[in-house]
Parts: sequence; structure tokens; C-alpha cells
Amino acid sequence: MDDTRARILVQALGDHQVRARRSLNLTPSENTMSPLARLPLALDVYSRYFFDHMRLFGSWSFYGALEPGRIEQEVLAPLLRESALADHVDTRPISGLNCMTVAMAALCPPGGTMYVLPVAGGGHMSTASVAARLGIRTVPLPMSGHHDLDLDRLEALLKSDPPDLVYVDQSTQLFPLDPKPLRDLVDRHAPAALIHYDSSHTNGLILGGVLANPLERGAHTFGGSTHKTLPGPHKGFLATNDPCLAERIGTISADFVSHHHLGEVVSLAVTMVELKECGGAHYARAVVDNARILARDLHCRGLEVAASDRGFTDCHQVWVRARAGTDPDRAADRMREQGLLVNKLSGLPGLDGAAFRLSVAELTRLGAGAGHMGVLAAALDPLLSGTPQDVTAEVAGLRSELSTPRYCHGSAEVAAMGAPPEMVDLMHAIESANAAG
Amino acid sequence: MDDTRARILVQALGDHQVRARRSLNLTPSENTMSPLARLPLALDVYSRYFFDHMRLFGSWSFYGALEPGRIEQEVLAPLLRESALADHVDTRPISGLNCMTVAMAALCPPGGTMYVLPVAGGGHMSTASVAARLGIRTVPLPMSGHHDLDLDRLEALLKSDPPDLVYVDQSTQLFPLDPKPLRDLVDRHAPAALIHYDSSHTNGLILGGVLANPLERGAHTFGGSTHKTLPGPHKGFLATNDPCLAERIGTISADFVSHHHLGEVVSLAVTMVELKECGGAHYARAVVDNARILARDLHCRGLEVAASDRGFTDCHQVWVRARAGTDPDRAADRMREQGLLVNKLSGLPGLDGAAFRLSVAELTRLGAGAGHMGVLAAALDPLLSGTPQDVTAEVAGLRSELSTPRYCHGSAEVAAMGAPPEMVDLMHAIESANAAG
Repeated sequence: MDDTRARILVQALGDHQVRARRSLNLTPSENTMSPLARLPLALDVYSRYFFDHMRLFGSWSFYGALEPGRIEQEVLAPLLRESALADHVDTRPISGLNCMTVAMAALCPPGGTMYVLPVAGGGHMSTASVAARLGIRTVPLPMSGHHDLDLDRLEALLKSDPPDLVYVDQSTQLFPLDPKPLRDLVDRHAPAALIHYDSSHTNGLILGGVLANPLERGAHTFGGSTHKTLPGPHKGFLATNDPCLAERIGTISADFVSHHHLGEVVSLAVTMVELKECGGAHYARAVVDNARILARDLHCRGLEVAASDRGFTDCHQVWVRARAGTDPDRAADRMREQGLLVNKLSGLPGLDGAAFRLSVAELTRLGAGAGHMGVLAAALDPLLSGTPQDVTAEVAGLRSELSTPRYCHGSAEVAAMGAPPEMVDLMHAIESANAAG
Repeated sequence: MDDTRARILVQALGDHQVRARRSLNLTPSENTMSPLARLPLALDVYSRYFFDHMRLFGSWSFYGALEPGRIEQEVLAPLLRESALADHVDTRPISGLNCMTVAMAALCPPGGTMYVLPVAGGGHMSTASVAARLGIRTVPLPMSGHHDLDLDRLEALLKSDPPDLVYVDQSTQLFPLDPKPLRDLVDRHAPAALIHYDSSHTNGLILGGVLANPLERGAHTFGGSTHKTLPGPHKGFLATNDPCLAERIGTISADFVSHHHLGEVVSLAVTMVELKECGGAHYARAVVDNARILARDLHCRGLEVAASDRGFTDCHQVWVRARAGTDPDRAADRMREQGLLVNKLSGLPGLDGAAFRLSVAELTRLGAGAGHMGVLAAALDPLLSGTPQDVTAEVAGLRSELSTPRYCHGSAEVAAMGAPPEMVDLMHAIESANAAG
């Protein structure tokens, strides 16, 4: 048997895993999952379909996953409703972009008008294109500076060109927008318009209670992906308190999504359970605290950190530039070689050229506190400054202290809950294979 | 700590896994994955982003998964091009419905006309609704009987109401449609029209070489999901030989898909490698052979099997009804209790009432041959006939012979390829946890 390609693949997968186990990840769109949240992805349930035909039509059609289907209905949905402060949640979407497509298609009619955040204001790059293909005209929300809406110009715009939907989608953000002033203006000047808040980046902070709930602040609907500050799988959800909007979303999601990716459904249920039972509120608080500490440390070292005039950040993101004369590409390459994996972007609102959009969510998930932020800042400084100092040992030390996810259940606990032995063995192997090493 | 909900979840997940390990699955939209294909879903790579910004923009933006990114570009894409006989493949889509949305949005303009298979002709239930929200008018393809196009009426339709796109999406099928006669008529009467062949159900049979390649038979583009007869993860692909169509698809997929779900990208690469290196052609041939043997066995036992006048099936699906007087719901419940997991549908083309849409793909994947089909037919017969006979022992015997996936690499081989020890241990735990037991 010629297994040349299998060898190439296994080698690359192994190389990546070895690197991951000695690196720390600072990419805002990523996080690390708990061993129990990874478990269903490696089990039979991943391959099965669950559709609630019994409730809808009075009998089952797909018989291969009735027990895991109960997890979607009896664990995931109630927990999401509880944490999202929403009467209705839709757990069909399979990704953040899938959420976006469903939300727009459900909430804005073809030929309708939708306000969106401009990319220069932190909006997602795909929003306007997806809208266009759905027959939706987009109008940029007026910004005041780099992080806020210009409410005066917004008021004028609402009068002159009222929208069907306002789609608030900060993917590059330091200060999550408050929907409340927007809602007040909408109610006054365009009362038929809806506000959807795409919370993909901040779901862990919202559901963990450190950021305000968008529905309480006036959004009609909110939701998004579940793998960024919320340390879950690739899934999505949409939440609302309005039964009519829930029905519109449900009609579209039933068309645009077939099966809900049941492995990820169970994995998201695990993530929500652990957020509730294992200190998710503490995690969410610590993410924001750590982000501010890291930002201040970097600032005090003389690096250019965005928004130093207003406390740097209210979420997980910290934006920092390399020192003048230091090539950002070279800096990012050196970071990777020395164990720091980052996200480098051009056009961060208010920063010229390529800069670093960092997140402390994953480190916090691994147990990082204020002290670790100081060590991290000290390791980042020479790399952002182009000095020859090598910080491999410092990063390795940090990684060994931040070895495995906290705020979650371990395999010993899961064994005590009565899991079958082979399932516990598998979970233990997942823990070992993904721990620092 | 209150871990009530974790206990409910772990219990349901464990119950499902125990049931799965003593059951056989006959659902056409499902299959079982190889241990190596499951592995990346439990590793770090699952949580990472890969975007090919180096090629597109000259430098990386996301640094967390450069090695696995090479797997997408240097293993998955070339293998798919090779197996799909296509110059261009798009590996961005994350599901079958995502493929459908991208294909329609890319290949049919808003306001355009698209022919679709009617649901009564085996078409997918979502096709017309997704099209409608994309501003596409749908016209049903004229059928002759339950399994074929009516080419005379099609010719008249092409003259009177020429389409922009013909979307061939058999999801409930016994005889995969040949695009060739359709293409001949399209070229003659509507030469601007495109033909897209949604191969979600039959990708394993097409890429395994037992069914004709849709591009060779005249489709302009084809593709779909990767977890049915192709025993892979939840992903999708779109293939074509036309560079302009590839560009149109790529433009839309870049908007409608953010990251490509990298764990699944690697898992699909494993699936394609194993199809190539571990006897995929034999598997594909055996699926169709087994389906015909099972159908004939059931027919000879006096059960009503669809299409007995034309050899029952040319693919993985076999449609059979319970005997008169036997309640299909009760039959399906008893099957589940005794270890046979099925798909029961109303409205199968040509069959009245609820009937069973079975597939032998997963059993074949587990190594089933002709002899196993006879045992399976003997086990299904009393359940479809409402007789009190219990077949739990017969099913258990079959399951123990069909314990783990064949046509794939085992953990010992992967160890010999140089995988890190903890990765091999994890793969071994995946094998053990999912084997019959």
C-alpha cells in the first residue's frame, strides 16, 4: 500500500500538535475547548442526525440519536435561554456566518435597507456582501471617532433613510457598542426597524455576565458564533424575546440549515453547562481584567496601545503596534518561533499599517491571572521592539503554568458521574494529548 | 459545585455511545468515520483558523495553524481535484446546505430562473426555499415516473422558459440521474444555462469510481456534503473544470464562509487519503453490490421493495415498506430496541405512506459483504412483518463481526508514520471507544 500522502498528513498534524502544546495563543477569534467539550466530537454522536420530528409531526424519522437529541432540547436550549435572558433561542446555525446569513434573511426583506458598521468601524468584512446577495441594500452606520456611533448623524439618517434592520457586528472591537441609545433613536424615528446584535466575539463575556445583555439594552435579537470568548465548538445561536421574530428566524434556519451538527450541539451544551457550573462568571470577569492589565503593561513599556486615553479595552481585545522601525511580519514570525501565536491585521480602526489584534481569552481560560499578564508583556516587548532577545524560555515557563483548561469538569469527575469506562479513557487521552508538553 | 446538568448530559451521551456500540446504522445520510478521520476533531487544530493570506496578500494574518493549512492546500485540494476529475475545487463550504447556498448564489443571478427536482422526484426539501430567499424563481423539472426526467417535456420547457441554472439535487434516490441527456438538451435549447449536480448523497460512490463523474457526463459544476456515502466529516466541496465558474464560486464562498472549520478540513483530507490508499474503489463497488443484494433478499422474502422491475437500486439506498397491517412507527421503534437504526419517511417517490429509506454504506464501511446482507435481511423481515420474533442476538452477532471501520489506517500504522505518542494514544482510545461492544 502506498501511504505517501497519509505520511505527509500525519507529519503535519503531529508537528502542529507539538507546536500547540508549547505555544500560547492570542488570536481573538480562537479559544481552547475543555476536554469534555471535545469528547462528543470524537464519539459516534458526531455522525448522527437529530430532527425533532416527534414534536413536529408526531413520529420520529431519524432514529440514530434520540438520547443526544434530548441534550439539545433539555440541556442546551434551556441553559441558553437562561444565560441569554431570552424566551426563545434557535440552536440550528452551524457557524457565525451561518448565523449572520439566517439573521439577515429572516429579519430584513429582499429589497430592504440595513444599516451596518463600516469595516473601518470594526464591522465584519463579509456583512455587506452577504446582504447584497440577499437583495439587501446596506448603509454604513455613522461613526464618531473609531469606537462609537455618531448619534446626531444617526438621528438624521434614521429620518432620511429609515432602515428595516440595523445589524451591529463589531468583530474588531475594544468597546462593545451599547444598543440602548441606538434603540432609543430607532423607536423615535424608525419604529418599524429591528436591531440585531452580532455577539460572535463577545458571547463568552455576555453569557458570563461581564458585558450587558444586548436584549436588555434594546436589541430585538442577538447571537453569533460560539468559539471565541465563549470557549465552545463551531456552532451558533440566535436569541430573542419576541415570539414573532423567533418564528421568522426559525422558518429561515429550518431552510438554510439541515442537521445541526449534533457533535457540536452536545459540545456547546457542555460549554454552557461548564460556564454555569464551573465559574464562567469568574472567567468572563478575568478576561476583561486581564486584557486591561496586559494593555496597561504594554503601554507602560512605551509601546503604542490603542485607546490609552479611555482605559484601553472593555472586552478581550487589546490592539498594539510594533515599535517604529520593527517589521510587523518579522515580529509575528519571531513570536511564532518563540511560542506566541498572534493575529496581525492592517486597518485596525485608528491604527496605521499592520498591527496586532490580541486577545487574552484563551490564556484566561487556561487559568491566567494578573501576574501572568506581566510575564506576557515582558515576553512581547522585545519581540515587538525587534531586539534580539529570545523569550522562548519565558514563554515555555508561562505555558507550563497554563497547561490545561480551567473552569471545566475533568475526566475523574466525569467518571464519577457514571460515564462508561471507554468514554472516560478517551476523555483522559484528550486531556493528555492537548496539555502543555 | 452543583453539577446536576453535567450529570444529565454525561448520562445521555454515555447511553447513546453504549447503544451505538451495539447497533447497526442504516440511515442514508449518515456513515461512520475512521479513527484517523476523527482524530483532528479532538486535537488543537479543531479550534484554529487558517486563511491563505500569504498567497493572497503576501503575509500571514492568522499564525495559529500554518502546518494544518498546508494539509488543506497540499493534500486535500490536490486529492479532491484528482478524484473529482476537476481542475478547480473549493473546499470552503462547511456543510451540504452551505454548498447549496454558495452554488445557487454563485451560479444563478437574483431574478434568475432555476430548474429543480420536485420533492416528489427525490429533490431536497430546502432547495426551493433557499432559492426563493436568494431571489431565484424555481421551476420543477418534469419527471417521467418516479426516477427519471421526462426529456420530451424538458425540451419543451427549455424552449418556453429557459433557465439560468439547472440544480440536480436527488437526496432521495435509487437511480442517480445522468446529466448527459440533460446537457445535450440544454446545449441545444438554452446554451447559456448551467447544470449543477448536488452529489451530497453519492460523493463516496462518485469519488470511489463506481458512479460516473458528473463533470464527465456534462454537469458544469458538482459537489455537496462529505459525510454520507463519503465517510467523512461535516464539510462540503464544489468542483468544476471551468475557471470562470470556479472564480464565481470562490467569490461567493469567501463571503458566505469565514474560516473553513480546520478540524474538518484535516478530517476530510484523511477521508480522501484513505479513500485513495485503503481501497476506496472496492468500498464504493461493495456499497452498490450490497444494496442490490439486500434489496433482492428483502424482495424474495415477499416484502415490498421499490423498483423491483429495474434492479432495485444503482446506489446505496434501498426503499422498503413494512408488510400490510404492520405499523411503521412501531416497526422502527422495535428495530431501534433490537439494534437497527433506520430512517423512516413518508412520500418516498412511488411508495404510499411511511416507508424505510435504508442505506448499506455504513455497514459496508464496517466490512460487510454479501453474506452479511442475508443475515441483515433475515433480521429485518420479522420487524417489518410485525411478528413477535426478537432478533437482538442476530443483530449483536452481525455487529460484532462489523466492529470497526475498514478501508482506513489503524493507530499502529499511524504510530509507524511517526505520529507523536500522545496522538497515537488518543487515536487508540478513539478506536476503543467506538468499536462494537
